This record gives sequence, C-alpha cells and structure tokens, in this order.
Amino acid sequence: MAITFNSIGTIQTPFKSKEGMPVQSSGSKGIKGIIVLKKRFIKGLLDLEHFSHIHLIYQFHRSEGFDLQVIPFLDNQPHGIFATRAPRRPNAIGLSVVKLISIHDNILEVENVDMLDGTPLLDIKPYVAQFDIHKIEKSGWINRITGNPNEVRSDDRFS
Amino acid sequence: MAITFNSIGTIQTPFKSKEGMPVQSSGSKGIKGIIVLKKRFIKGLLDLEHFSHIHLIYQFHRSEGFDLQVIPFLDNQPHGIFATRAPRRPNAIGLSVVKLISIHDNILEVENVDMLDGTPLLDIKPYVAQFDIHKIEKSGWINRITGNPNEVRSDDRFS
Repeated sequence: MAITFNSIGTIQTPFKSKEGMPVQSSGSKGIKGIIVLKKRFIKGLLDLEHFSHIHLIYQFHRSEGFDLQVIPFLDNQPHGIFATRAPRRPNAIGLSVVKLISIHDNILEVENVDMLDGTPLLDIKPYVAQFDIHKIEKSGWINRITGNPNEVRSDDRFS
Repeated sequence: MAITFNSIGTIQTPFKSKEGMPVQSSGSKGIKGIIVLKKRFIKGLLDLEHFSHIHLIYQFHRSEGFDLQVIPFLDNQPHGIFATRAPRRPNAIGLSVVKLISIHDNILEVENVDMLDGTPLLDIKPYVAQFDIHKIEKSGWINRITGNPNEVRSDDRFS
C-alpha cells in the first residue's frame, strides 16, 4: 500500500549537480543552506530556534530506481544499500543533521548542508543529545576507511 | 506534488496501544523488537550486521492529521511540531535509533524500540559516530525538563 507525503518546503544549497558534493553533512562544515518552509507551517517552528542542531528528512528527488548493493563513495567494496547512506534506495529518503543558524518567518538558515539544491523537505525534528547520541560498539565498513570521509566528494556513480 | 513510498517491511514491538509507550528509544532500553523485511530486499542487508546501531525511518501509521503546536509528553508548554518528535506531524514520519542484535535472512532483531507494533518501515540506515554524533550547544525546551525523559510514558493526547 502506497504511503504518500507532501513536501513541507524546499532546501536551497550551493550543490546544483550530483557530482562533487560532500558525502555527509560532517564533510560540509560551514556550507550554508536555506530552508524555505511553506508558509502555512510557520507556526510549527515555535521554539525550534533554541536547538543548535536539527534533523532534516527529505526526498532524494533526483534519484531514480535503486540497487540493493552499492559501492559507496567512501569505499571500494559493495555493501547492502541499508548498510550505506547512498541515495538510490528502495525509498529515496535522505537524513542529515545540520546546524541551525537562524529562523525568520518561514526561512531557516542552516549550516553543514550535504543535499542537492531544490531538495523537497519532508520533516524537521530537533536533534537532542539525550536521544540522538549513542555509544557505538561497531561501525562496520566505515571503520576500514583509510581516507578522511569529510574530504571525499561524490562522483557520478549514482547518476 | 505527492511523494510516494512503499513500506520495505514491518516492525514488530510489544506496544499494541499508543498509551503507555516510552516516548523515545532512549527510554526503551532493552525492549526488543523484530523487523520483518520484505524478502525481496534481503540483499540490501549485506554488511549491516557489522553496525551496532541503526536508524529506522518509519510511518506513524496510526497518526491522523496534525497540529502545528503541541504539548509534548515531556513538557507542559506548547511547542512547534518541528521542535518536537510528536507523531501527529504534517508528514507522519518517525525516526529512531535502535541497537542491532542479529540478522537472519529477512529478520532483524533489535533493541530499544519505541514504536507501535505493526509499524511500516520505510528505510534503514547505519548509525555512524563520525556522521551522527554532534556537539550540541543548545537543546531548547528539552533542557528545562525536570523529570527523567527515559521514565516518561505516552498518554492519549495524540490519539
């Protein structure tokens, strides 16, 4: 049964192309983006400005189809799509944590954006230390990366 | 323009009712759940077992409509829906981090579940320290909570 959502706004970023992007928001430190929330949702922003970080849940709107196993940007081995953050997923849903700089009316200024310009936004949730910081025992293939993941940039493999 | 997804599986938990649930996965330590992934997605699980924690993105399937401002379970003041994790949101999307215990075929055993039994799963992503742990400067109204959020349980306010 299909599950249907509607965008609540749009994320504007400097990234016009799927190539050359940071592959995670931790690799896009200081890169600014703008969220243009649909005006009818402004009341839903009350008190959000008191959080320094927020989760954005969005659609990978330029991703079509999916592969169940992929070689992610950070590795040279194939992994299951659910063990990666690659965009061509069964449901093309993206998740990023960004730094919230300011809110004016329906405009949110954020930092550390790692998504394409024009990305449809589905949800905003506060990032809260008590709920979102977990003690990790193992991080799978990510532990084997030799380079600095924050310096890796996307190429055209998912285009 | 509607954005359409399909569930990739179902999350089974002990919670049959919206009342009396933990309000965050940090409040459901040790509570076990089972993810039954649709069998056609099994290949997408390759290497996921090497991660100790995973993000689950799912539908709040028993949530209807939304309010732009709510009094969350953890407070007695209204806040914008986007400054809370309350289920009655413009897009009824839930996000939880759970501990991954085991994977056998299409069955994932997880811990720290805080969602209703029968929840439709939309996506699984690895939780990775480098990408998901952020230094928080402020946590808004959450900082003012006097009780222990891990001991708070849901009531019927969003039913």
